[in-house]
Amino acid sequence: MELKNYIKIKRALLSVTDKTNLLSLAKCLSELGCELISTGGTAKVLSEAGIKYTEIGTVTGNPEAFGGRMKTISFAIESALLFDREKDKEEAERLGISPIDLVVCNLYDFEKYVRAGSGLSELIEHIDVGGPTMIRAGAKNFKYVAVVTDPKDYAGIIEELTTNEGALSYNTKQRLMTKAFNLTADYDAAIAQAMDKFSGEDSLRIALKGGKPLRYGENSHQQATMYRRSSSEHSLYDVSSYNGIELSYNNILDMQAAIETVVTLNRQGCVIVKHNNPCGMAESNSQLNSLELAWAGDTVSAFGGIVAFNTLVDLPTARFFEYDNEDKSKKKFIELITAPAFTDEALQYLKLQKNLRIVTYLPEMLSASNELRVTNDMALLQSTDNKLSSKMELATKNEFPLEEWESLISFGLAAVRHIKSNAIALVRATGDGVLQLIGMGSGQPNRLDSIGLAIKKAKKNLNVSSFENEQIVLISDAFFPFEDNVDAANEVGIKTLVQPGGSIRDKYVIERANSYGMNMILTGIRHFKH
Amino acid sequence: MELKNYIKIKRALLSVTDKTNLLSLAKCLSELGCELISTGGTAKVLSEAGIKYTEIGTVTGNPEAFGGRMKTISFAIESALLFDREKDKEEAERLGISPIDLVVCNLYDFEKYVRAGSGLSELIEHIDVGGPTMIRAGAKNFKYVAVVTDPKDYAGIIEELTTNEGALSYNTKQRLMTKAFNLTADYDAAIAQAMDKFSGEDSLRIALKGGKPLRYGENSHQQATMYRRSSSEHSLYDVSSYNGIELSYNNILDMQAAIETVVTLNRQGCVIVKHNNPCGMAESNSQLNSLELAWAGDTVSAFGGIVAFNTLVDLPTARFFEYDNEDKSKKKFIELITAPAFTDEALQYLKLQKNLRIVTYLPEMLSASNELRVTNDMALLQSTDNKLSSKMELATKNEFPLEEWESLISFGLAAVRHIKSNAIALVRATGDGVLQLIGMGSGQPNRLDSIGLAIKKAKKNLNVSSFENEQIVLISDAFFPFEDNVDAANEVGIKTLVQPGGSIRDKYVIERANSYGMNMILTGIRHFKH
Repeated sequence: MELKNYIKIKRALLSVTDKTNLLSLAKCLSELGCELISTGGTAKVLSEAGIKYTEIGTVTGNPEAFGGRMKTISFAIESALLFDREKDKEEAERLGISPIDLVVCNLYDFEKYVRAGSGLSELIEHIDVGGPTMIRAGAKNFKYVAVVTDPKDYAGIIEELTTNEGALSYNTKQRLMTKAFNLTADYDAAIAQAMDKFSGEDSLRIALKGGKPLRYGENSHQQATMYRRSSSEHSLYDVSSYNGIELSYNNILDMQAAIETVVTLNRQGCVIVKHNNPCGMAESNSQLNSLELAWAGDTVSAFGGIVAFNTLVDLPTARFFEYDNEDKSKKKFIELITAPAFTDEALQYLKLQKNLRIVTYLPEMLSASNELRVTNDMALLQSTDNKLSSKMELATKNEFPLEEWESLISFGLAAVRHIKSNAIALVRATGDGVLQLIGMGSGQPNRLDSIGLAIKKAKKNLNVSSFENEQIVLISDAFFPFEDNVDAANEVGIKTLVQPGGSIRDKYVIERANSYGMNMILTGIRHFKH
Repeated sequence: MELKNYIKIKRALLSVTDKTNLLSLAKCLSELGCELISTGGTAKVLSEAGIKYTEIGTVTGNPEAFGGRMKTISFAIESALLFDREKDKEEAERLGISPIDLVVCNLYDFEKYVRAGSGLSELIEHIDVGGPTMIRAGAKNFKYVAVVTDPKDYAGIIEELTTNEGALSYNTKQRLMTKAFNLTADYDAAIAQAMDKFSGEDSLRIALKGGKPLRYGENSHQQATMYRRSSSEHSLYDVSSYNGIELSYNNILDMQAAIETVVTLNRQGCVIVKHNNPCGMAESNSQLNSLELAWAGDTVSAFGGIVAFNTLVDLPTARFFEYDNEDKSKKKFIELITAPAFTDEALQYLKLQKNLRIVTYLPEMLSASNELRVTNDMALLQSTDNKLSSKMELATKNEFPLEEWESLISFGLAAVRHIKSNAIALVRATGDGVLQLIGMGSGQPNRLDSIGLAIKKAKKNLNVSSFENEQIVLISDAFFPFEDNVDAANEVGIKTLVQPGGSIRDKYVIERANSYGMNMILTGIRHFKH
């Protein structure tokens, strides 16, 4: 196809706010015999570097006017960008319009002034009109015109120009055009959002890029795609996969819950997630030990789960899964393993399990401060739940060495924050400073049911009928509405309860805890998660 | 403030694709002594109606050129829109630029051609360059220029012009400017998305409007805002509230789950949701009866829940809550009640409970076909789970009158689809065609635990230890991985199981069901929901 051919850049228009690397591109164009047209500040930079250019006024026939509001917009410039080089050739000649083949342009930095909290009239001054017009005109005519909007693209363009005697390909121009319309879309999105705000309306525009089709959604009859928020420096989209089949929709959700939980742990942390709930979790000075204890938290559910670590995974840890065991029944099947990094040996070992998804993440990928759900064309935006507690207040009468228990309580809060409501976590510390989730109750409409589930699991895990001799804490994501919750804990010898507090019935609940000689700590922060 | 004053519109530029109601505005302007400037097709319409106008070429000094690509863009027009009426007054006079005070312009309908599946070169032809330039230039200078981009705004402008001797207020111009930048943002968003696609990239741009700050998010330390997707005809954002305090974040999520479930029911349906899970649900020929049975499904959890109906709520139903009972303990406290409508009597009665949120919805508000989650700056888009089953296949040996049971099974699938995974629903039909959810198990990492929870609740509800004499079905959102699930059902006399099937172990599970003389129906569709 002829259009895929290279077209020589004979005439270029340079008008930029950001002068970064401008000269390298200008020199290259100039040396290749391209005529440069330029405006105000850009022209000054060229002039100082001794690069020949044509003053834009010579082309437009107009002065730069109105404090710079009118520089490029003119019949001459936009015609030179817009006319069809085939159909309109004669008309252009008749009208004395010579083509412009390349535009280098970037826009006034509008968002900088939004961030700085500028008022309406100041912001208005930073809305670029001439720039978007040139960019959009050139982009519309991209078959013939290259539109360069980002200094980061200069190097590639210089290389292509140099290699091809001053010509650029159709593909390059299509890529630049696509980028150009994304720029003007982002630009007007920022303006619209800011102007809405001045009109008293809170609006939000979100751009998502890099759509990867997933095999399916939560279920196989649902289509799904994963995107990256394009404006973000960091995104969980950017995790790296090293093995196994593609991540599924549910893998991604579970992996996210696992990573969100494990990054809040100290020392060597391990979290196992199944169906979006942390069902195993431990923290100790040994990675392998943490994995063993997390696995022991729910050995039934751990199978087919997602396992996440907060540190480099080494070979001894990897060997836990027994992927080289000849007895297949010993192999511990999981869907996905994730960590900030793996040693080469660990990676190689884990790859023995062909379908195991091995994923590395960076903690920064969790730096987004908001989450958004859009369903039924209604959107709910909320800031992330990033605060474990606002206080640690002993509400009961008995003396209790709260400081000594604080790390266990924080560990339990980290678990309960990610368990679906109503959420209960039973966590244990053993003498050697090892912290473990020994039972969890999740997703119940009724808090008492969640307590029952957590206790049942913990009994089974520890093979005990009472927890009297354990350093154990029961943590609730929300307040205890009634005393029956306290009764249920007491019945199995649990002595320490943690809850946010805030019920009008707190005092009765605390009274009941006192009547059993229990300790109750109020944290001030609820952790509902639906 | 002087700027809030009205400024007379002396000169207007009219250049529209959509000619709807153009003449009414043009006549009004003309009669008020405003000079009209116009282009091609717009001018023709004015001319035919006998309205005097100035040909744009007279102002620009340029011809309409290049098949219409160049019509308005010119130093004269954009200067007339952009110059500062105070600062630049003398310069404008010197350059012979007279102000244009109003622009009526709309854009080529780019999205129409996207929807029609046009190729790249055809789409490119429908990218408007002159229109956005005029609109953005006028909008930037909105202190002095009104930019009208929507025929729907003509009537209001005509009224304001007529009332104010041809002048428009600052506020009106600010409103029009804000709308204008939203239009150009939407326009370039559509172009960017289409051009990305031609470059092989799947991108998505979403505009959300009407942000309403909520009291807080899922928890009080989280901020939250609700938005409406601006491009949508219908949105659950548009529900109407009739009483009570503001909807909370969790109210909205629960209400959504309740409505999504209840609209799938037939006859008189009622759903009660707590913590995002349907915990009570019934369908019958009597609304009150359905409410009573839904309430009986989990009388503990129903308190403080969200109650939804699929039909007009009448007074007898409303009286169920006993808000006029002098014995306060009889009042059934709920957070929110929602239905397509309420009779006046029902509404009045329900308002007796001051804090009760009363909300009406329209079934169309659930017409969105996709849902999106953005967390950690990664987005997951999926089509909604809108298919209950792909088959109804009896997998067991016994004869079973499947058709007679189909409505009960579909009812149960409607429940299980909205219960968090692993989800189990126990549903019952009674002789008079009444369908009821009698127990549910939700949010467990382990399916067997969910079965246990559902059975425990159902036993308590029906006050039985076995279900042998009931027309009851146990429905699972996903396949049974092991026979223990079948054992658990058999133990309490449940005879009919429904599951999607699809496990490599299906045959063993079916064998086990046969060994108990059970019925097992395969539906082909999984309903994970996390």
